[in-house]
Amino acid sequence: MKWEDNVRKTVPYVAGEQPNKAGMIKLNTNECPYPPAPEVGKLLREIDPSALRLYPDPNATLLTDALAEYYRVDPGQVFVGVGSDDVLAMAFLTFFQGGRPILFPDITYSFYDVWAKLYRIPYKTCALDGSWHICPEDYEQPNGGVIFPNPNAPTGILEDLETVERIVRANRDVVVIVDEAYIDFGGKSALPLLKKYDNLLIVQTFSKSRAMAGMRIGFAIGSKKLIGYLNDVKFSFNSYTMNLPAQVLGVAAVRDDAYFKETVGKIVATRERVKESLRELGFSFPDSRANFIFASHKEYSAEQLFRALREDEIYVRYWNKPRISNSLRITVGTDEQMDRLIASLKEYQDKRRRCPE
Amino acid sequence: MKWEDNVRKTVPYVAGEQPNKAGMIKLNTNECPYPPAPEVGKLLREIDPSALRLYPDPNATLLTDALAEYYRVDPGQVFVGVGSDDVLAMAFLTFFQGGRPILFPDITYSFYDVWAKLYRIPYKTCALDGSWHICPEDYEQPNGGVIFPNPNAPTGILEDLETVERIVRANRDVVVIVDEAYIDFGGKSALPLLKKYDNLLIVQTFSKSRAMAGMRIGFAIGSKKLIGYLNDVKFSFNSYTMNLPAQVLGVAAVRDDAYFKETVGKIVATRERVKESLRELGFSFPDSRANFIFASHKEYSAEQLFRALREDEIYVRYWNKPRISNSLRITVGTDEQMDRLIASLKEYQDKRRRCPE
Repeated sequence: MKWEDNVRKTVPYVAGEQPNKAGMIKLNTNECPYPPAPEVGKLLREIDPSALRLYPDPNATLLTDALAEYYRVDPGQVFVGVGSDDVLAMAFLTFFQGGRPILFPDITYSFYDVWAKLYRIPYKTCALDGSWHICPEDYEQPNGGVIFPNPNAPTGILEDLETVERIVRANRDVVVIVDEAYIDFGGKSALPLLKKYDNLLIVQTFSKSRAMAGMRIGFAIGSKKLIGYLNDVKFSFNSYTMNLPAQVLGVAAVRDDAYFKETVGKIVATRERVKESLRELGFSFPDSRANFIFASHKEYSAEQLFRALREDEIYVRYWNKPRISNSLRITVGTDEQMDRLIASLKEYQDKRRRCPE
Repeated sequence: MKWEDNVRKTVPYVAGEQPNKAGMIKLNTNECPYPPAPEVGKLLREIDPSALRLYPDPNATLLTDALAEYYRVDPGQVFVGVGSDDVLAMAFLTFFQGGRPILFPDITYSFYDVWAKLYRIPYKTCALDGSWHICPEDYEQPNGGVIFPNPNAPTGILEDLETVERIVRANRDVVVIVDEAYIDFGGKSALPLLKKYDNLLIVQTFSKSRAMAGMRIGFAIGSKKLIGYLNDVKFSFNSYTMNLPAQVLGVAAVRDDAYFKETVGKIVATRERVKESLRELGFSFPDSRANFIFASHKEYSAEQLFRALREDEIYVRYWNKPRISNSLRITVGTDEQMDRLIASLKEYQDKRRRCPE
């Protein structure tokens, strides 16, 4: 036998590329186009380097307390991790252990099946309907757990709280995870449902609306019981996941609510404006409530538009996958960035009209 | 059925307490008593807060390159994670999948059995000999993988490279992990063995000798094949584990080799001096090559000494566990801190001699 026979082989998730060119426009990984709250930069400069010699607080108490205060829950209802991917991976490992297949939409965040495979959790996907909505009745079959993003990715479609509650209510014997990475851009969080359902876990992130993808902070809110189980697994994996700067700067980001709301407001305004411009250019798309638009064009393939934009150093996300291969996921950037995107698309259209292929 | 029936239940690792009192002496989690390299503090102030809005480099290229250069290996041989606990947990999940029990010493880092239980990996412990050394012949039985720290924890005992090589050579059909968290304090790393063995994984950390426990940086070096498998699992778990400050400051720490050697030299000198003082006080201990001493007293129990030191606000580590419950693990701090420790122990001894219980 060779040592390689003992190795867990996986097909890893492939993240959006991270190009780093001067002048490029990066609209491919749903980052926030605005910097983090001013207090974040200020506290970054105030960190005492000699404090780095000590282990950080394993419970990230200041950060969980700040989140608990902000979301008006008990600190024991909050769990933090190294980005929401860390939180979600821990939740898969903790909660989806029933042996029966877990359920999630067929078109969704592409990490779900990767985690299921990594942890050998059986899964079954439920097809979105013709208008890209979740069909709640699909989640009323026997299962080992449920997860879906709201708004969904990469469609940007928001389900109303009634639909979310219907799914949670129908699945009291398993854990239901609502992945709210994009909820701040116009959705209604499932947080109020926590009062009624102790099997609901809500996951959010600092990477989008709080402009801190580079700090890796995600969090989950659920019943104290649920969070307790999650912490047991986390403390069986790595006691100290959140480094000192993440804890300090995370608190700063939560505290500046005015800046947060201003930033989110600007992104939402830009998104609505861009929807108009894209429609005029012949694009159609689900009505996104996230910080991206999932657009397809009536004449040009997503792949050719993706390549054309790339030549103009504008990066958007394209997947060569069934059902979604004719759409581009375009992150909402600043007004200036989106003007350049629209101009580039218009130019491509003009060129193609002058000389069709 | 209740949702709790689907939950993975674990008994988590309990880390050393993290008290935070003015004037206390913290010798309980093997942190470095000196601050990180000056360049770390400088670069911390130079991080552009607006860069935090972007995802960090998922490959932590600058950091893996700096480590590859320092240890004279190919960058493809280096893996980085959120502290060596993250690296080790990923390695357990990746490499210990053969179904047969993995082997590690009975007295060792107390996270190994926690990871094994978390990932449902069968394991078997091999007893250290009477002088706390590893018996290499114990690792010549059929197994699904091997892991041991060198120097071992909490004993501080170093095995020579011949013993390490004997174990690696006898286990070519599985992965052998040498956990070198404390190697910089006087041990010989197994790095040269990498030329001969592609089944050897060496794990180190920035938390001890590089004074950056608060940044959470650990790393592994092995054959490109081994590191490739580890990366596949890591990218199936969380694409972006290392936040921007960790990547930037990690590079700064690696580059300042003079400071690193000076710091380590001071700790080693203090350790040797403290060994003398402890011996004079009636302590005995294995000859530590780490940044801690695992000491037991001929008259007083570890538990009573632990409590007495605590009253003087001196924190050391004590485990109420078979075979090790009569020893204290004392981290080597600064000379001043160790003088206070010795004085406190002497005072306790004097008091007890005057009025025996």
